[in-house]
Amino acid sequence: MSDLHPPMSAVRDVVARALAEDVLPLGDLTASLVDPDVHARAAFVAREDGVLAGRLCAVEAFTQIDATVVLAWSADDGDALQQGTVIGVVTGPLRSILTAERTALNLLGHLSGIATVTRRYADLAAPARIRDTRKTTPGLRALEKAAVRAGGGVNHRANLSDGILVKDNHLGGLTITEAVKRAGERWPGRVVQVECDSVDQLHEALAAGAGMVLLDNMTPEQVAECVRITAGRIPVEVSGGVNLATVGAYGATGADFVSVGAITHSAPVLDIGLDLQD
Amino acid sequence: MSDLHPPMSAVRDVVARALAEDVLPLGDLTASLVDPDVHARAAFVAREDGVLAGRLCAVEAFTQIDATVVLAWSADDGDALQQGTVIGVVTGPLRSILTAERTALNLLGHLSGIATVTRRYADLAAPARIRDTRKTTPGLRALEKAAVRAGGGVNHRANLSDGILVKDNHLGGLTITEAVKRAGERWPGRVVQVECDSVDQLHEALAAGAGMVLLDNMTPEQVAECVRITAGRIPVEVSGGVNLATVGAYGATGADFVSVGAITHSAPVLDIGLDLQD
Amino acid sequence: MSDLHPPMSAVRDVVARALAEDVLPLGDLTASLVDPDVHARAAFVAREDGVLAGRLCAVEAFTQIDATVVLAWSADDGDALQQGTVIGVVTGPLRSILTAERTALNLLGHLSGIATVTRRYADLAAPARIRDTRKTTPGLRALEKAAVRAGGGVNHRANLSDGILVKDNHLGGLTITEAVKRAGERWPGRVVQVECDSVDQLHEALAAGAGMVLLDNMTPEQVAECVRITAGRIPVEVSGGVNLATVGAYGATGADFVSVGAITHSAPVLDIGLDLQD
Amino acid sequence: MSDLHPPMSAVRDVVARALAEDVLPLGDLTASLVDPDVHARAAFVAREDGVLAGRLCAVEAFTQIDATVVLAWSADDGDALQQGTVIGVVTGPLRSILTAERTALNLLGHLSGIATVTRRYADLAAPARIRDTRKTTPGLRALEKAAVRAGGGVNHRANLSDGILVKDNHLGGLTITEAVKRAGERWPGRVVQVECDSVDQLHEALAAGAGMVLLDNMTPEQVAECVRITAGRIPVEVSGGVNLATVGAYGATGADFVSVGAITHSAPVLDIGLDLQD
Amino acid sequence: MSDLHPPMSAVRDVVARALAEDVLPLGDLTASLVDPDVHARAAFVAREDGVLAGRLCAVEAFTQIDATVVLAWSADDGDALQQGTVIGVVTGPLRSILTAERTALNLLGHLSGIATVTRRYADLAAPARIRDTRKTTPGLRALEKAAVRAGGGVNHRANLSDGILVKDNHLGGLTITEAVKRAGERWPGRVVQVECDSVDQLHEALAAGAGMVLLDNMTPEQVAECVRITAGRIPVEVSGGVNLATVGAYGATGADFVSVGAITHSAPVLDIGLDLQD
Amino acid sequence: MSDLHPPMSAVRDVVARALAEDVLPLGDLTASLVDPDVHARAAFVAREDGVLAGRLCAVEAFTQIDATVVLAWSADDGDALQQGTVIGVVTGPLRSILTAERTALNLLGHLSGIATVTRRYADLAAPARIRDTRKTTPGLRALEKAAVRAGGGVNHRANLSDGILVKDNHLGGLTITEAVKRAGERWPGRVVQVECDSVDQLHEALAAGAGMVLLDNMTPEQVAECVRITAGRIPVEVSGGVNLATVGAYGATGADFVSVGAITHSAPVLDIGLDLQD
Repeated sequence: MSDLHPPMSAVRDVVARALAEDVLPLGDLTASLVDPDVHARAAFVAREDGVLAGRLCAVEAFTQIDATVVLAWSADDGDALQQGTVIGVVTGPLRSILTAERTALNLLGHLSGIATVTRRYADLAAPARIRDTRKTTPGLRALEKAAVRAGGGVNHRANLSDGILVKDNHLGGLTITEAVKRAGERWPGRVVQVECDSVDQLHEALAAGAGMVLLDNMTPEQVAECVRITAGRIPVEVSGGVNLATVGAYGATGADFVSVGAITHSAPVLDIGLDLQD
Repeated sequence: MSDLHPPMSAVRDVVARALAEDVLPLGDLTASLVDPDVHARAAFVAREDGVLAGRLCAVEAFTQIDATVVLAWSADDGDALQQGTVIGVVTGPLRSILTAERTALNLLGHLSGIATVTRRYADLAAPARIRDTRKTTPGLRALEKAAVRAGGGVNHRANLSDGILVKDNHLGGLTITEAVKRAGERWPGRVVQVECDSVDQLHEALAAGAGMVLLDNMTPEQVAECVRITAGRIPVEVSGGVNLATVGAYGATGADFVSVGAITHSAPVLDIGLDLQD
Repeated sequence: MSDLHPPMSAVRDVVARALAEDVLPLGDLTASLVDPDVHARAAFVAREDGVLAGRLCAVEAFTQIDATVVLAWSADDGDALQQGTVIGVVTGPLRSILTAERTALNLLGHLSGIATVTRRYADLAAPARIRDTRKTTPGLRALEKAAVRAGGGVNHRANLSDGILVKDNHLGGLTITEAVKRAGERWPGRVVQVECDSVDQLHEALAAGAGMVLLDNMTPEQVAECVRITAGRIPVEVSGGVNLATVGAYGATGADFVSVGAITHSAPVLDIGLDLQD
Repeated sequence: MSDLHPPMSAVRDVVARALAEDVLPLGDLTASLVDPDVHARAAFVAREDGVLAGRLCAVEAFTQIDATVVLAWSADDGDALQQGTVIGVVTGPLRSILTAERTALNLLGHLSGIATVTRRYADLAAPARIRDTRKTTPGLRALEKAAVRAGGGVNHRANLSDGILVKDNHLGGLTITEAVKRAGERWPGRVVQVECDSVDQLHEALAAGAGMVLLDNMTPEQVAECVRITAGRIPVEVSGGVNLATVGAYGATGADFVSVGAITHSAPVLDIGLDLQD
Repeated sequence: MSDLHPPMSAVRDVVARALAEDVLPLGDLTASLVDPDVHARAAFVAREDGVLAGRLCAVEAFTQIDATVVLAWSADDGDALQQGTVIGVVTGPLRSILTAERTALNLLGHLSGIATVTRRYADLAAPARIRDTRKTTPGLRALEKAAVRAGGGVNHRANLSDGILVKDNHLGGLTITEAVKRAGERWPGRVVQVECDSVDQLHEALAAGAGMVLLDNMTPEQVAECVRITAGRIPVEVSGGVNLATVGAYGATGADFVSVGAITHSAPVLDIGLDLQD
Repeated sequence: MSDLHPPMSAVRDVVARALAEDVLPLGDLTASLVDPDVHARAAFVAREDGVLAGRLCAVEAFTQIDATVVLAWSADDGDALQQGTVIGVVTGPLRSILTAERTALNLLGHLSGIATVTRRYADLAAPARIRDTRKTTPGLRALEKAAVRAGGGVNHRANLSDGILVKDNHLGGLTITEAVKRAGERWPGRVVQVECDSVDQLHEALAAGAGMVLLDNMTPEQVAECVRITAGRIPVEVSGGVNLATVGAYGATGADFVSVGAITHSAPVLDIGLDLQD
């Protein structure tokens, strides 16, 4: 399995920003009503089936609020959760638990939602693999890309700086052939992926020396034909028109990857709650 | 109508972070293949019906990349969009348009998605009004709360610092009556809202002097009874078990507000594209 | 008592900025003359009577400079200090103590100054309560609002985003009645406070459904009359012309709150020193 | 005259932080009630005599909120203001003026307060000159040091990194002589100032080669004697026990500088208002 | 040619930090002595032969200090400079020119130094191409990688997140074969480069399906043999022992790339001055 | 010896920025291939003779990546290193060591490179002392100035705000005499250094009361004459035309300081490696 956690510097920054957003400037007015010496124990519980992601974020949220809060986990990013699964237990001052709760749950729910939807797509797409896109939530890309990995997907380019994706109508007069050539000269050592809308474009991309193709808005039948044409020389990725009803058909075409924007831009949260225990 | 745009300082910060995330450190490799003197014109087009939100963010994304890009808008936040509606037109160097495109669309799509779902709930809930929650995406609260307003919803407390919401099982031994009293002493001049799971709690909240109640996880019938009991003395809000199928029934109970976490935490993006024009 | 400490994220940020301002880029030139292995013990001592605020800031200043410095406190925010009171003791490398000293004292003195003046006003105003304003030092609002609470005052709205305060001459042609109505529609569930300069405006505010009034620049006699007119229906706050000589008279009018900008914008520091011990 | 404005990068940062503190996350709720097309004109007016400082901050506050707001000034930092003086006029959308008003006034009032008190001390201390200290408000040092210059004072070291000030009881066993020698070796080319509490220490400091002395907590008579002893070889500065009643006596001793913490840490705001005009 | 400028967001951030470092808190003391109404004109002049890089940084430095300064350029990043070449002319208030000068020159000199050394290596290495490494100055990677492009080099991976480089002694017990396989599964669609110290390792890397090899610390003869073995199946890169005396021999081996840490970590500045004109 | 470490707040900020630059957004792809439970031990080893600087940065890099990594040092900033010297040992998870390695080495190598070159100049210049300039790498001034101290140099002014350096052709019509007078009035208590290109200027500077002179672009003979003229009244500094071949001659002239831009702007890295141990 790949590395399923995001870099800590992203976790620290996102959580700090989220907490500032939620507690400044006066602090948690409601928690301030509770006596400061009341301690509590609470359990993170999955209220529906899914896949966990975001554990480091939840830990960081409590720790930044109060370094004395203790967390014990029984699941980690990438683990399947059944409704009712206890994911972890948090112990500490009740005030601190209440103040950090929503930030922790917002991150856990959002990222686990992405992991869960990714897993669903990944299971249906096999043997093809699910890839994410740059259609992520601004500010959360590092966390969402890690959640995709936790769900069993693989990451496409992380941003405009670490991959080349040539689309024919975006070239301002350049042909695909010229664009691939230019990419090879300017950014050698990088895979040049070409988006193709037709078999003709695929032929041009192959002849130009593309390192990967992205077949956009084709039917599974068209994709299968393109896979035959490509004949394993370079990886084939599919996008457009992919949903839970169609992903299986695309996955069965022989394509290597199916990329799905919806796993990051439209995943509903996974319902995870924090239950105070007596 | 309320003010439908988020504060500019939030817009500037979120866009700067999103662009840094997408173009650092090498810049847009693919756009660098295009000749720098090619100019283009592209239209933001709604690919499905919905409600617009996030226009300031889209403007900011292009402007931060290239101050010479010009944008002309034919719709503003809060406007209904039909499939095919041209929302605005962007003109400038093709390279700059390509580089800013995804960040602009990610924000437009995400925020318009929230506005669209909010509008749907708001239409069904009338005469009750839809309120948001703190279940927002970390780092984007100011933008998402504005999108809720654009969709016709109203904002609940913005964060833990600007409102009091007492939940009986979160008090560490304090009664509702004691908590409301304490809140009145420590944070006078603020509305103290009390979450009630039962008619008994409602009676206690009313007697304690709550400024608003949040009826949680009740059926529409139970809500209606609570509305009768409250008799207009204070506003009544409903939460829990609310979805597009049930919101109409809750809205018809006489409650003032129905709060829905899903409008922010689980709204799918609204599909908006940027079409390059010849 | 309310929660008297500011949120830690505000403390961390303000202290980091203050230390950067004081030690960059070369560090503490003078402290560098001291041998690094000299340890010391020093006591924070009140040089005049007052009220403590800012303890978390002082701790944070030493800790950010040197995690091995140890602090032991005998007083906390909100405690009364007599001249000569030892507030706390700091032990550690002399160099680190010297470097953090001024930042710690600047924050302790400034915030304790606010708490001290607030306490003075609060004692004179009783049974009315002292409220702060938005006339705070830029960048320090969270800390100063907490210092007001430590002094026994209560917080008015924290910022423009968490409260509505309608002033008649700021409405651009709107009447008070229209403004209150609009506020209720756009920002329902929030208290709408109306500033009144006259009895006529008070009547209009009451009729419009204001949730609180702010009587501005009235004499105590005028305030008393307004209190009679309001008759407990909504809270009454007084501002303008309030100083230590007059606050008692205003507090005796029956008004609920007296708000005073001077407690934050013009409080002199409380003189606190750090005495090195042999 | 010296340069009376602070560096723009400090102005931009402080204003951005102040506005974020005041308008996030929902924006200015009250200003949102005003119709967006109402324009207004408002004058900054001194409500009491004083000295102006902070003009760049006021400009920046309006500009960051709304780039279409126009400001025209009739006074600049360092100018004397009489009660009633119109300092400047701001024109633009009423909403934007209302939202930026408090931030602009907080900075103008705070910094002009410092300039005003400084001027008062400076006039009384002549021919000695008033110097500031490091007893500034955390986060505002660059602005406050500029306000001191606007008031006719001069700046002491800006921070621990740009000057050496040796205090005898802070040396951890080192003598003044040793400390001055060490300072000369480690930080050559910098003035080494020595704090002296007695004539004996002054003699030691002079013999050690101090570049300036700071006479702390002496009477004017003691200072005069020290001035005679020093005989113009190095500058003499006085601190401790200085207030508006005593500063004249200290200034007449022949000392070069009198440093006063109160001009930054305890200056009351200068009352400046923003009057909307019909 | 590739895109030779760094992303503007990197330029803005680095320049803001550099100026803060150089002018806070008191501003430019020396420039403050100059009368504010003196205007000047100054020319950037190359004092030695080289290649220009960093033009955007120089513009940004003056603009952040004073938006009224005007710059006119006669050369751009990537252009060859002869000793005496006038690169550009800056016109504006003398004070502002003096204050921004050093920051602009530090960036121009540092980045042009990198471009110059890169060009020297690139000319000698042809037909092989020069690649940079991650041995860049902390905080300046985006700018330095662009300077390498300006010098005619090409960029290796930008950071640990956008490329895989397997070194045999860093695998903790994993074989090269296993590592390449794992990389293909976890990070599919990315080139997996393998560092080889011997012909045996090259064979293993080729068999494992490496996408590129990095031959480390081999002689030109050994490299030539490896090139023969690889036979054009994948690109070959060379590193270690490369300097200006040896790069020609390595470039003649048939290898595709020669990577050189020294072009970023040890490039002396290019001497560029700013000459005030009468 | 002076204080040889930079302030921790500079260390923390630079390292955080460097790591973000190197690991975001996906983390270390290559390290993720290693099994997470593999631990390792690695030694920092000098691969050439030199002087150490940057130890705090190396510690911070590992600690920010993984708080469980342990470092033990056998050398500190300022220590001479022979080729083969083991500087320190790091123990912890192999993944974490690999991820932090390059950032730690980049900082160690860059700063030790500066210290090493400084030491070389300092040894040759004695009895004159080597001073640095403002020709530092943007963003790294605090670290580089500390590295100069570690190498045995002393720091010139840290920035434009903490020292005055008058150059005759930068005065916009002002004479040296007028500039020194103005500096004394506006910034009293600070050393005013005057740059002199000729004996005539030296005479003017001395007569004007300069506190130090900087003799620019003179031969050692001219410097020696200026030293005789100055006759110890104020310190004399030399700059321009100084390199390793000439610094000895300048140092023998009797001048107090020789300032060299090259020690910061053109120092090659010191080659330090991290050797994994079995």
